[in-house]
Parts: sequence; structure tokens; C-alpha cells
Amino acid sequence: MKELKQISVIGLGLLGGSITLAVSRSFPSVKTVGFSHRPSTRRKAIKLSVAHQVVDNMPDAVARADIVILATPIYTFEDIFSQIADYLPDGCIVTDVGSTKVLPHRWAEKCLPKRVHYVGSHPVAGSEQRGVEFARDDLFDKALCVLTVTKNTDRTSVEVLKNFWMKLGSVVRILKPAEHDKIFADISHLVHLTAASLVNASRQKDLQFAGKGFIDTSRVASGPVNIWSDIILANADNVSAGIDCLIAELTKLKKSITKKDRRHLEKLLENARNKRNAMIQEKMEKGELL
Amino acid sequence: MKELKQISVIGLGLLGGSITLAVSRSFPSVKTVGFSHRPSTRRKAIKLSVAHQVVDNMPDAVARADIVILATPIYTFEDIFSQIADYLPDGCIVTDVGSTKVLPHRWAEKCLPKRVHYVGSHPVAGSEQRGVEFARDDLFDKALCVLTVTKNTDRTSVEVLKNFWMKLGSVVRILKPAEHDKIFADISHLVHLTAASLVNASRQKDLQFAGKGFIDTSRVASGPVNIWSDIILANADNVSAGIDCLIAELTKLKKSITKKDRRHLEKLLENARNKRNAMIQEKMEKGELL
Repeated sequence: MKELKQISVIGLGLLGGSITLAVSRSFPSVKTVGFSHRPSTRRKAIKLSVAHQVVDNMPDAVARADIVILATPIYTFEDIFSQIADYLPDGCIVTDVGSTKVLPHRWAEKCLPKRVHYVGSHPVAGSEQRGVEFARDDLFDKALCVLTVTKNTDRTSVEVLKNFWMKLGSVVRILKPAEHDKIFADISHLVHLTAASLVNASRQKDLQFAGKGFIDTSRVASGPVNIWSDIILANADNVSAGIDCLIAELTKLKKSITKKDRRHLEKLLENARNKRNAMIQEKMEKGELL
Repeated sequence: MKELKQISVIGLGLLGGSITLAVSRSFPSVKTVGFSHRPSTRRKAIKLSVAHQVVDNMPDAVARADIVILATPIYTFEDIFSQIADYLPDGCIVTDVGSTKVLPHRWAEKCLPKRVHYVGSHPVAGSEQRGVEFARDDLFDKALCVLTVTKNTDRTSVEVLKNFWMKLGSVVRILKPAEHDKIFADISHLVHLTAASLVNASRQKDLQFAGKGFIDTSRVASGPVNIWSDIILANADNVSAGIDCLIAELTKLKKSITKKDRRHLEKLLENARNKRNAMIQEKMEKGELL
């Protein structure tokens, strides 16, 4: 396996900036190069020293990279793949940190030359905050990172990328893109829509009475709108099915409540409680909870 | 206003135990007396020194109290009011920490003698944990506490109780019972059902991939089932209306997604984001966020 010399990140937000910072921490001899299309973000990135070099065009960003990582909203990937295609070094690994994986694989297949290797990455990290000023070199510590592969994916590149994310502190799992998108529709994209709906269903003046429960349950609704609309539209069918499933569960609860059927209500609440507690237990045993 | 000498708490769970501990911290000269119907809880309470005295019957618990606080599940209140009615000292203030307030007021009106004064309390504090072993003397610091009053409520007792909760660290607000139950249906009881539905809508095996978003959004679903079924059934009509409202919001989102109407989707997400951020901002300005 060849030695990594340069990692280039396109998009210097919370995730992109955290990647370059984490690379500097975990790979002291690897050069980090960052690009953002916004001059103001480039200036901030330079001021905060998130990368060894911040460049103002994509060809320069990718020209000598061993790994190129896209950390921009999903719907920009197709265009970026096309723009960088001719400038990528032979054998370069291209990945992204998008929260859906079917479309990125499709676009990579279509736009990238055969002499480079695309593997999907989805680091399950981040927060409701955005912007390079929130970048942290420990963002990936103990965080899950799902790699997505198809039958055409280069296995050596998968190994290199797996080691890369593990070195940044992540726990790596490998899935097919369609599997990934189905799973994350239910446990991530639906969560955002649920939080947003809960807030939308409330009256602003009542929120002065909101306690820790409401604040935590709605936290993700404060996340960046354009990133989330991208994710949700890129996974529309799975997310729609997830909403149907959630509405079905809410309707079951409602029935038990209007019928004053305490036994059924408690069964539904107990089921949720046991399922969540089993998840927490498993994550604690695996050391995946900070 | 007379000097407080004894506070008695019926029910020594997370809330009850935290009240006696907080009283000891904030009112060093006041005696705290606790009662739990479970011998095992009484033993734990004694071992953890959560109260000056732990007694094994309700008449002894309330006999010399200036304030009696019920910290048991809501549907036990009617029975407890009846059981303590004859033993309460003249002028004693009786309150509870139930999360709904219409029924407690109705039961107090029906079961308590006119020589004592009932005021509803709802400290918006607690966590998904339960049991006296999680009791903390700072549970009410900066936490909201809503007092509920009707046209019959004794105003002097409201003032005494208001000062009491403020001394424990709470921010006190006063509402009518029906107002309270409508507001908390939307910002608290619905939140629990939403979290439970979200967990129930997921597949257990997918939860290994759940990140911080899912963990936080579903946190309250790990709360005690019997406490929550009580709360929800005691506020059934408002909670049902809340579920309808949530389903309507989810349906709006679903429509925008299936139509790939990015503008509408972003408008809905933006609305939630702005509303939540305004809430956080207001709480920060008021110093209500720890």
C-alpha cells in the first residue's frame, strides 16, 4: 500500500475543516490542501490554519492528491467530479462525505475517469453547527464511518480509505450504496424531518416553556437547511417511506390514547424504551459512546 | 408569611429525592420528611440520606408539614389526597409535581379539606433516568417551574410556594390548569410520543448505525413507561390533537419531497430552524440554559 503524501479536501465547512485538522493530528507527515469556492471561507480557513495550504481553484487542489475528499452539499458532486476529472493524478482515490450514497456512486461512475478510484464515505459525525470555525480535530473520534462499495469498486482503495478513517479515530463499516441509503433514511434523514415537524407543530409563544426534552429532541432541526434539503431530496423515496412508517407509529399511539387503552399504550412505549436502551447498551459495550 | 419548618415529600424517585436534597441545600433549617410505599426505596433513601427522616406511612409523613409535595405518578394523586386529608395540619400547603394539572386540581378540589391549600406545581426538570439514586440537589437550578392556580386558589399559598421553588433555583411561571395542559401537550407530552414513534419506526439491527442525532432525538423515549402513560392519559385530548398536528406537518414535508419541491421543503425546514433558534436565543438571554 503506497504511502499517503497529500490529502485534498474540497469544501471547508465543519466536516471538511475537521478532516484537514484531524489529518494533521493523525498523519503528521501528510500535507493537507483545502479548497472552498467562497473567498471568505478561504480567508477564515487560512486564519484558523485548518490546512497546510488553501488554494483558490479545484485543479490546484487535486493535482497532487493521493485522496480527494468532497465535503460540499451532495448536489454539487456531479459538477465537481466533472470539473476535477482531468486534473486527478492516476490512481488517486476520490471520496466524499455525503449523507446519501446512491447518487454519488452514480455520478462518480459517469464523470470520473477509470484511472482513479471512487469509494463512498459517510462519516456519521457533525452537529447542528456549520462553518469552518466549528471544525475540530477530534470530530471523528469513535464516530462511525460507513464506506460504500459496488461490485466495480477497487478493493485496494477501499482498504486504503478504511485505514485512513480508522486513523482519524472512526469505526468503519462497509455497505452497498442502496443498503446505506435505506438505513440512513430511517435513522438519520427521518430524524431531521421529525425534529423539524415537532418544532413546526408548536406555537412559538409556548416554546418559552420548553424543557430539556424538547430542546434535545429538536436539536437537529437547527442544522443547515441547504445541506439537509440536499440529503432529503437525494434520498426522496426512502425518506417518504420512512415518513409513512413514522405516521403509522404515531397513529397506533393515538388510537391507544383515544381509546384510553393503557395496556396498548404502555406496550408501545415499552417497545421503544427497550429498543433504545438495547442500542445504548450495545454502543456502550463497543465503546462507541463518548 | 409564616416560617417554613417542615417539608414532606410523598414519593422518593428522581424528583421527590431531588426535592428533599434541594431543600436541605437551600433551607438548612427546614426539616425534610420523605415517604415511599416501597420498603426498598425507603431503605435506599435512608442509605443515601436524601431526607432527614424517612417514614413508612403517609399520616406520619404529613402530620407536621408546612408543605406536602406529591411526587408519585399522576393517577395516584386522587387516592393519596383522600388518604392524607384527615392528617394534614390546618393551613398546610399541598402541591404535586405532576406533568398535567387539570386532573390534580379536580381531585384536590374533591378530596382535600378547605382548611388546607392546594396549588399545582410542575417543575420542568428530570431526565430519562428514574429512581432515588439519581436524585440531585441541583436538579431545579435554572429549571422552569409552572404553578397552576384557579379562581379558588389561596393567593398567600401561591406566594409561599413561588418563593419555595425560586429558592430551590427554579424560574417560576403561573398558568391556569387548562392552559398548562394544552401547552405541555405540545412541547412535552407530544415530544415523548414522537421519540417513541421514531424508535418504533426503526429496525433494531439498523440502530448500530445511529449517530448523535438519533441518540439525542430519541433520548426521552428511554423514560419510565408508567410515568409517561399516566401523563399522556391524563392529557389525552390535548395530546391527540398534538399528534394530529404533527402528522399534518410530516405530511406537508412528505408532499414537498415526493414533488421534489425544493423551495417548499426548504421553507418548512427554515421555519423550524428559525423557530428553534429563536427559542434557544431567548433562553440564553434569560439565562435559562445551563
